[in-house]
Amino acid sequence: MYLFTNITGVFIFDNQLNVIDKILFKDSKEYKNKAEFIQKIKEKHKSLKEPGDADMEKLLLFFKSKSFSRAFCDNNLQLTKSCIKKSASPDAMLIQATNSIDETDKIINLLARRLREWYELYNPEFSRATQSHEKFVEDILGKEKIELLAGIGADAEDSMGADLGQKDIEPIKSLAQQVHGLYQLRNIQESYISSLMQDLCPNAKAVCGTLICAKLIGRAGSLKRLSEMPASTIQVLGAENALFRHMKTGAKPPRHGILVHHPLVAKAPDRMHGKIARALADKISIASKIDYFRGEFIGDKLREHLDKKFSAKGNFEKSA
Amino acid sequence: MYLFTNITGVFIFDNQLNVIDKILFKDSKEYKNKAEFIQKIKEKHKSLKEPGDADMEKLLLFFKSKSFSRAFCDNNLQLTKSCIKKSASPDAMLIQATNSIDETDKIINLLARRLREWYELYNPEFSRATQSHEKFVEDILGKEKIELLAGIGADAEDSMGADLGQKDIEPIKSLAQQVHGLYQLRNIQESYISSLMQDLCPNAKAVCGTLICAKLIGRAGSLKRLSEMPASTIQVLGAENALFRHMKTGAKPPRHGILVHHPLVAKAPDRMHGKIARALADKISIASKIDYFRGEFIGDKLREHLDKKFSAKGNFEKSA
Repeated sequence: MYLFTNITGVFIFDNQLNVIDKILFKDSKEYKNKAEFIQKIKEKHKSLKEPGDADMEKLLLFFKSKSFSRAFCDNNLQLTKSCIKKSASPDAMLIQATNSIDETDKIINLLARRLREWYELYNPEFSRATQSHEKFVEDILGKEKIELLAGIGADAEDSMGADLGQKDIEPIKSLAQQVHGLYQLRNIQESYISSLMQDLCPNAKAVCGTLICAKLIGRAGSLKRLSEMPASTIQVLGAENALFRHMKTGAKPPRHGILVHHPLVAKAPDRMHGKIARALADKISIASKIDYFRGEFIGDKLREHLDKKFSAKGNFEKSA
Repeated sequence: MYLFTNITGVFIFDNQLNVIDKILFKDSKEYKNKAEFIQKIKEKHKSLKEPGDADMEKLLLFFKSKSFSRAFCDNNLQLTKSCIKKSASPDAMLIQATNSIDETDKIINLLARRLREWYELYNPEFSRATQSHEKFVEDILGKEKIELLAGIGADAEDSMGADLGQKDIEPIKSLAQQVHGLYQLRNIQESYISSLMQDLCPNAKAVCGTLICAKLIGRAGSLKRLSEMPASTIQVLGAENALFRHMKTGAKPPRHGILVHHPLVAKAPDRMHGKIARALADKISIASKIDYFRGEFIGDKLREHLDKKFSAKGNFEKSA
C-alpha cells in the first residue's frame, strides 16, 4: 500500500493503485499542517510505503479527474497568496524606503532649483547669498524679505528683486512649503531605514553607514544575496556599466561602485580609492555574513580596524 | 553753445568745447528726471543747440577724464538694477508658475508610482482597484486597510498584503501625505496662473484654456513675442524637433505642437488633427494680438466659432 500526499489531501492506494482511504484538505491551512493528517492516517493503516517512479506515473493519472481541479485551483491560490503575503520581508521594506529616499533627494533638488529661480525674481540677493537649499527654504518660509536682506547685510532699497504683492508671493511660498515637507519626509525615511537596519543588519550598518548599506542591499536584492557575494563583487556593486565596459573594451576596471560615497573612500586621496574600497568591501562581506546568520555584533570592531588603518594622517604613504 | 546730457549730469559747452556750466546727477533717479534739470539749465542759458557729429566726437573726449568714471559706474549700476527689478513682469511670473506646474506633475507621477509599489506590499488589492492616483492617495490617508478592502468588496482575511505594524506603515503614510500636499500645490499654482491670465490675456485664455495658453506663452518667451508670431508658427510651437527633422530629412511636417493637448484636437479623429490645429492656431494668433494691445474681450466668440465648426458630430466629414 502506498501513501501519497498533495495539496488536495492525503491518499492511501492499494497495490492495484485504487484509492482505499483518503483525507481531503479543506483549505491550504490544512495542507500546511499535513504532518498531522499523515500521522492520523498512518495509525489506521500499517505497512505503508512511498510509491516508486513507475507506480507514481500511474498513480498521478488518478488526479487527472475533473473532480479534483477545483480543489487544486482553490488550495493553490490560497497557498500562493500566503506566500506573497510572507514575501514582504524587512528586506523588501528596506529596499522600498531606500529607493524612496533616492527619489526624494532628486525631487528636492529639482524643486529647490525651480523655487530659487522663481524666488530670485523677488529677492535675488538672498538666494545668491545662501548656499544650502535646506537653510534657504527654512529662511524664506520664516522671515520677510526685509529681514532676510538685513541678515546678509544688504539694503532692501537696493534690491534688484521686484516688489511683488501678496498674491504673487503666495504660490512661491506654497512651493517652499512643499520642499520643506519633502526634507521632513526624507528625515522620517532615513530614521525608519536606520531602525530597520538595527534589527536586520547591525554589523553591516556599523561598517558602512545607513544609506550606503541600504543601497548595497537594494542593489544586491536582499541581505541574503548580499551575504552570498564575494568581497570583490561588493566592491564594484553599482559600477556595473564600468565593469562591463572593462570586460568588453579593456578599459580600466572600476575601483568602486556605491562605496565611493563612503566617507573613508571619499575623503582619501584619489590614488588610494581602490585600496580602501577593497578593504571596505572585505569587511562588509564579513559583516553581512554575520548579520544574515544572526551572529553577534562585531561591527564596531570591523569599522575601528578600517579607521585605524586608513584615516590616521600620514598612514596613506606607509600602507600604500 | 551746446547742451549735452548723459548719465552723470547736464553740461553746457561753449563753442570752443569748454564746460561753462553743469548740473551733476547724484544718482540714477535724478537721471530719470533729467527733463527737469534740463529745463532748469535752459532758463539760465539762451540759444542752446545740440552738438553735431564732428563736435560730438571732441566733446565726448571730455568725459574720458578719470573723475567721471566713478559717477558713470555708480549711476549705471543703479540704473541696471532698477531695470532688472522691472523685468519681473507678469509674463515672467506666469512662465515660472507654468514650469513649476509641469515639474510638479512629473514629480507627482514619480512619487505616486513609488508610493503604490511600496503600499502594495501592504494592501495590493486596493491599489489595483483604484485607477486615479489622487483618489488613491486620499483614500489611504483617510481610511484603514479593512475599510478600504471592504469598500472594494474584498475580504481582509484573503488579502495578499503583509500585516505591517504601525512602525512600517508610518513612513508609507508620510510619503502619501507629501503626494497629497503636491496635489494641493498644483491646485494653488493652477488657480494662480488662471488669475494672472485673466488680467494678462483673457482672450487667449478663453480660446485655448489656462494651461495650454500658459505653455504657449512660456515657449514663445512672452505674450509680446507670442502676439508677433504668425498662426503657422503657433500651430507647431512645441514641435521644434519634428519641424527641424522635416526640414532636414524631408520627413512629414508636424501638424501640431503644444496644441495637441487641446480638447478640440485631442477628441477629434486623428486625420482631423492638422486641420483643427490650424484653425485653432489662427484664433489664438488673433486673440494674443488683441490681448497684447489690450483690446476688448472677444475670446468667447472666437472659441464658440471653433466649437461650432468642429465639435458638432458628423460635421467632421463636411468640413474636411
